[in-house]
Amino acid sequence: MSATAALAHFALDCQYDKLPARTVKEAHRTFLNWLGCAVGASRHPSTEIALRTVSARAGLGEAAVLGRRERLDLVNAAWLNGISSHTFDFDDTHLKTIIHPAGPVASAALALAEKLHTRGEDFVNALVLGIEVECRIGNAVYPDHYDVGWHITGTAGVFGAAAACGRLLGLDEKAMRYALGIAATQSSGLREMFGSMCKAFHVGNAAKNGLFSALLAEQGFTSSERALEAPRGFGHVLSTKFDEAEITRGLGSTYEIDRNTYKPYACGIVIHPSIEGAAELARRHALSADQIERVDLGVHPLVLELCGKRSPATGLEGKFSVYHATACAILYGTAGEREFADAVVKAPGVMALCRRVHAEVSPGILEHQADVRITLKSGSVLHLFVEKAKGSLEQPMSDAELETKFRTLCRGVLPETQVERLSEACWKLGKMDDLGSLAALATLQ
Amino acid sequence: MSATAALAHFALDCQYDKLPARTVKEAHRTFLNWLGCAVGASRHPSTEIALRTVSARAGLGEAAVLGRRERLDLVNAAWLNGISSHTFDFDDTHLKTIIHPAGPVASAALALAEKLHTRGEDFVNALVLGIEVECRIGNAVYPDHYDVGWHITGTAGVFGAAAACGRLLGLDEKAMRYALGIAATQSSGLREMFGSMCKAFHVGNAAKNGLFSALLAEQGFTSSERALEAPRGFGHVLSTKFDEAEITRGLGSTYEIDRNTYKPYACGIVIHPSIEGAAELARRHALSADQIERVDLGVHPLVLELCGKRSPATGLEGKFSVYHATACAILYGTAGEREFADAVVKAPGVMALCRRVHAEVSPGILEHQADVRITLKSGSVLHLFVEKAKGSLEQPMSDAELETKFRTLCRGVLPETQVERLSEACWKLGKMDDLGSLAALATLQ
Repeated sequence: MSATAALAHFALDCQYDKLPARTVKEAHRTFLNWLGCAVGASRHPSTEIALRTVSARAGLGEAAVLGRRERLDLVNAAWLNGISSHTFDFDDTHLKTIIHPAGPVASAALALAEKLHTRGEDFVNALVLGIEVECRIGNAVYPDHYDVGWHITGTAGVFGAAAACGRLLGLDEKAMRYALGIAATQSSGLREMFGSMCKAFHVGNAAKNGLFSALLAEQGFTSSERALEAPRGFGHVLSTKFDEAEITRGLGSTYEIDRNTYKPYACGIVIHPSIEGAAELARRHALSADQIERVDLGVHPLVLELCGKRSPATGLEGKFSVYHATACAILYGTAGEREFADAVVKAPGVMALCRRVHAEVSPGILEHQADVRITLKSGSVLHLFVEKAKGSLEQPMSDAELETKFRTLCRGVLPETQVERLSEACWKLGKMDDLGSLAALATLQ
Repeated sequence: MSATAALAHFALDCQYDKLPARTVKEAHRTFLNWLGCAVGASRHPSTEIALRTVSARAGLGEAAVLGRRERLDLVNAAWLNGISSHTFDFDDTHLKTIIHPAGPVASAALALAEKLHTRGEDFVNALVLGIEVECRIGNAVYPDHYDVGWHITGTAGVFGAAAACGRLLGLDEKAMRYALGIAATQSSGLREMFGSMCKAFHVGNAAKNGLFSALLAEQGFTSSERALEAPRGFGHVLSTKFDEAEITRGLGSTYEIDRNTYKPYACGIVIHPSIEGAAELARRHALSADQIERVDLGVHPLVLELCGKRSPATGLEGKFSVYHATACAILYGTAGEREFADAVVKAPGVMALCRRVHAEVSPGILEHQADVRITLKSGSVLHLFVEKAKGSLEQPMSDAELETKFRTLCRGVLPETQVERLSEACWKLGKMDDLGSLAALATLQ
């Protein structure tokens, strides 16, 4: 079977009862982490502007805007929640492709599930299969597709959202192939946008356009049935590499969600090892900024490529600055969302230390590693090599750590008691009778 | 100035009063032709399905759905009208890039103009500048971008819609650059979709997403300010060729809309010369199908590449079949929208003649030419070389021919007297006080 047909078949064939326990568990962790990020950023200016733009003209209040009181039609709700879930750049990562898997799929599926009163097990199944479709398409085109400049979470995410929603809507196989085709022809998102509100916009668009693809296919809108593999289809037009076997091999027996990872720090994952090393050295030696002459980082090439902003002017830009993040790690011991506020980026003490951080590519170093060297004014040099940063596949965040992250993100947005109930509900996602009750818990009443 | 900044500056600098008379005139012809196509396809299954999908959840009735009674929020109205305007594949063509210029720009601008009660001269100005932005971006990346598989009307059209709407909304230059950036990162549409409902979907998406880009920028949503020319921006990611001079050279002194062309036949423009030649030979010799042994076409390579469907099964596929279109030209003397109905494609007489049509690439032949040879059962051979097909730049459709085409398209959709008033209004577009009155004339009351 060709790629498009295989994925359409899989999306309708995948059964909750047959999913490995580990996969079901990881889906719960993925959902909790995603939901915390979406609730957490629900008052961010990006979310406010996005909401203001559509609320004047959005339709029925079919679905929840997470963390808020407003309701929107389900397409716009999926869009809003997709944007807020990625705004902090604190969501999950499929390390093999740098896809943030949950954003497009969960945002689309939750809006639809709320409207359809979907059961928890069907929702978990849709989440797993949507992420599978998304990540396998990513695997097929990575790294060429990413290297040329596509924001792969947007471009691959739209397929995952379409597959998950198509399954919840009960499409037949032909309509599912069409839904994937309608998704393919909306696939978009440029890496040039990193550091602007458009990065999270891509995630919202993938959720919205994927959901919309499934809704159109349900009504009989036609497309190509070979959208992935055709000579002028997604694979060949958006990438110089398209390895169809990455899509079909082991489909339905291995699950990409098993390889999902979660961020302890609210910024680009490639700079996590630098943050961890700098924070650890500062802690061990109880360093203060005025002791430090300079900080030298030996890093993977992607660090400078993705997060090399020398003088960030906003919190959003700070997320793409290994210099700012490292300075925060030393000054505050971490780099959570608070450390990427505009005011922190512009604080004189932070800026002064930021200027003393230097980064160079270290030959042969891996993406989850960093070589951190702090030279003190006293002349002594402190050194730490980070082998495997927390949040990597080898050092995953524990359930308790994920829950703490979730609580921290929701605090101040939702009432404390509601946060507790929401967290409990997330761990019981697969057992819920109606996703609508979860959506209600995740909004202001 | 770089491409993005130059286009943003131009979009705010362009003045109706300073446009050449010829350009203003061509804008009126472009609008009339576009409106006829949109009204004509307003009951087509593609439009019906699209409307059904959004009408359940669309918001306020801010803007007209052309040719119908329904009203939608302006983003969905732009989308619907974009789809219907391209559904017959009967709209305009910028021959240098094969962009269909009006669809994305006019669909977006009219929906917004209706809501804003825009004056005619501001609307015409927005139409001209939007098409300028769209076609210049097309010029910069054509042919590589098109050859690899992008549907350039979708990918370039979104910029034109953003620029036109940004101007109508009164964005400042920075917001206009953001609007172009937000558009860039939504740029999409694959040629693999040709022959399915997704082809017209691309035009609707370009209109919708371009308009939405301008609305987001108006509210303060941020983007890159170098979306076109940056290393990971539109030009380099979506094309191997990006000639920035095509964007900046002569900007504001020459107008691409001057080179717009209109189709006498309701299908891919590359097969028009074949249709014209076959129809002319059939007319001259009063041919009937049973006299004909075979038809041999010598054509430009794009004919087989774009319109080589050997056995079309639907009307939509028929538009991409030089065989079907040529058979119709012989049997019916033309290839209007009627000849691309499903029933005509499946008619035994049409299918039988279609099978006797053969096409081969003729070395050195130009896109607006065809070599038509009809071999009769009697043994005699009729031959005609079409030098310049009607509808080409050298043989443009006259105002009267455009008006006849418009009336034919609107007939049966809108009442006759309304069609007359609408046609008059189109010729006076630049003098109108409020575009809302035109939108009202183009809908069922």
